[in-house]
Amino acid sequence: MTLPAPLFEAVPNFSEGRDAAKISRIVDAVGGVPGIRVLGVHSDPDHNRSVLTFAGEEEAVLSGAMALARSCAVELDLTSQAGEHPRMGVLDVLPFVPLAGATMEDAAGLARRAGEVLGSLGYVVFLYGAAASAPHRRDLPDIRRGGYEGVAERLSDPRWRPDYGPWMLDPGRGAVAVGARPFLVAFNAFLDTDDVEVARTIARRIRESGGGLPALKALGLLVDGRAQVSMNLTDLSLTPIHLALEAVRSAASDLGASVESTELVGLAPLPAILDAARHYLGLRELGPEHVLETNLHDLSS
Amino acid sequence: MTLPAPLFEAVPNFSEGRDAAKISRIVDAVGGVPGIRVLGVHSDPDHNRSVLTFAGEEEAVLSGAMALARSCAVELDLTSQAGEHPRMGVLDVLPFVPLAGATMEDAAGLARRAGEVLGSLGYVVFLYGAAASAPHRRDLPDIRRGGYEGVAERLSDPRWRPDYGPWMLDPGRGAVAVGARPFLVAFNAFLDTDDVEVARTIARRIRESGGGLPALKALGLLVDGRAQVSMNLTDLSLTPIHLALEAVRSAASDLGASVESTELVGLAPLPAILDAARHYLGLRELGPEHVLETNLHDLSS
Repeated sequence: MTLPAPLFEAVPNFSEGRDAAKISRIVDAVGGVPGIRVLGVHSDPDHNRSVLTFAGEEEAVLSGAMALARSCAVELDLTSQAGEHPRMGVLDVLPFVPLAGATMEDAAGLARRAGEVLGSLGYVVFLYGAAASAPHRRDLPDIRRGGYEGVAERLSDPRWRPDYGPWMLDPGRGAVAVGARPFLVAFNAFLDTDDVEVARTIARRIRESGGGLPALKALGLLVDGRAQVSMNLTDLSLTPIHLALEAVRSAASDLGASVESTELVGLAPLPAILDAARHYLGLRELGPEHVLETNLHDLSS
Repeated sequence: MTLPAPLFEAVPNFSEGRDAAKISRIVDAVGGVPGIRVLGVHSDPDHNRSVLTFAGEEEAVLSGAMALARSCAVELDLTSQAGEHPRMGVLDVLPFVPLAGATMEDAAGLARRAGEVLGSLGYVVFLYGAAASAPHRRDLPDIRRGGYEGVAERLSDPRWRPDYGPWMLDPGRGAVAVGARPFLVAFNAFLDTDDVEVARTIARRIRESGGGLPALKALGLLVDGRAQVSMNLTDLSLTPIHLALEAVRSAASDLGASVESTELVGLAPLPAILDAARHYLGLRELGPEHVLETNLHDLSS
């Protein structure tokens, strides 16, 4: 048996969330690439922005990113785009995520390859995250500060030269941040109260920005009449799902509330689920190699 | 995308646990069948008995069972076999287990097909479990009661006519029970005490035979100087892993003890792990469709 090829996920954000025909042509351009699986499309009309998730082996994902960049250049024009989100380009952000068999360095390498290709297509490209070319360019908010106008202003600063592409912004196309980052898990906890302030207090206490758990973002919301702590886990190796949940449970308990139920939004990687099961079952070890289906995955025709 | 073909597991027990060369020839006969994955071999010299686990699609597993039956007939002779286990044949038990995409009725159908083939090879075949031809023949202990001699005695009783094969035992080959049953999970809990009586008391309280949880077998053992509750979960739809563990934790707590760690012996099916994670994380739902890798399994070359 040969080892399966490493897989990667790409989660591009592009600046169109209203025109269903355009969105669907862009998504189809990516989905039509052989070896690509489109895992999800989420369009937000208010932000006038869509998030596309697709996966495959390295060469397929690279081809998918090229097809995406070409399609965004044809379909979209930043000069006629309006929306609440501080966009800096028609293809705004393009993160690559290492999946089974791939390392973060592999994903950073893929991001650099994709960046070079997008540069040759005329995009101004900034590498970020694990693919960043300098420490001050690691964080996405620093790269996109001020949106298109902010980027245009900083281009003359040697610290903010693009990694690839022209040193001058095409107003219709703008700039794109291409990077590598860990898999992101969206996880929500519903409380036994309709008091959104309880959820907000819990969120402030547990999130990284409030001195809580690393790589955890949290907001308190009111959803379906229930207070909800809405979380993004941006690095499961720092804060796994069960630690985030136990932090919510503990903070809720201090406020006389409790967690009624939870939900995963979108997909979760198998190792993250196994980690939670291992923790709660007290298992000495539990890896994909202990799962029956992992041992059978290439048996089925 | 077409649905993957249903998969099955076979867990035959054959009456040789000492002669490594014979065991390896028998295992190789099965492993050499195209489309078969050998998942494990466990040989017990005291019982002079081996348990082989293999999996694949229906036709492959049927061919594997035929190769196994032929090899056991060539390599083994019940008249010269001795061991503690009350064996009734060289190929003693052959259960089929439905895996991904297969139902219990599918597995029972496969068991009947395999039984017919083994009968044509000269084995006396009794169907059991979900494949049984009558309610009094469902339980394996009832079929094998008294071992070879017990089976020989009962053959004249119309209630114990074989389902397939000759109505007369070949003393060198004996009889085989061919059946269908759910996946079996072996799960052990280590206690924070070296007092084996605590483990035995817990085992008696939680197991089905003591009025505890259905489809749960349990024994108290001393392993590596620690009291261990050793469990077999024979139907996860009746007693899932987390309920077995919580029963141990609760009984241990009553005795002033606690569970220090646990272990899964062999493989566990993904839905059983997801069920435990769902329970402890309080998730409204968690199925294979929420697992990233399930959505990618046919992308990798």
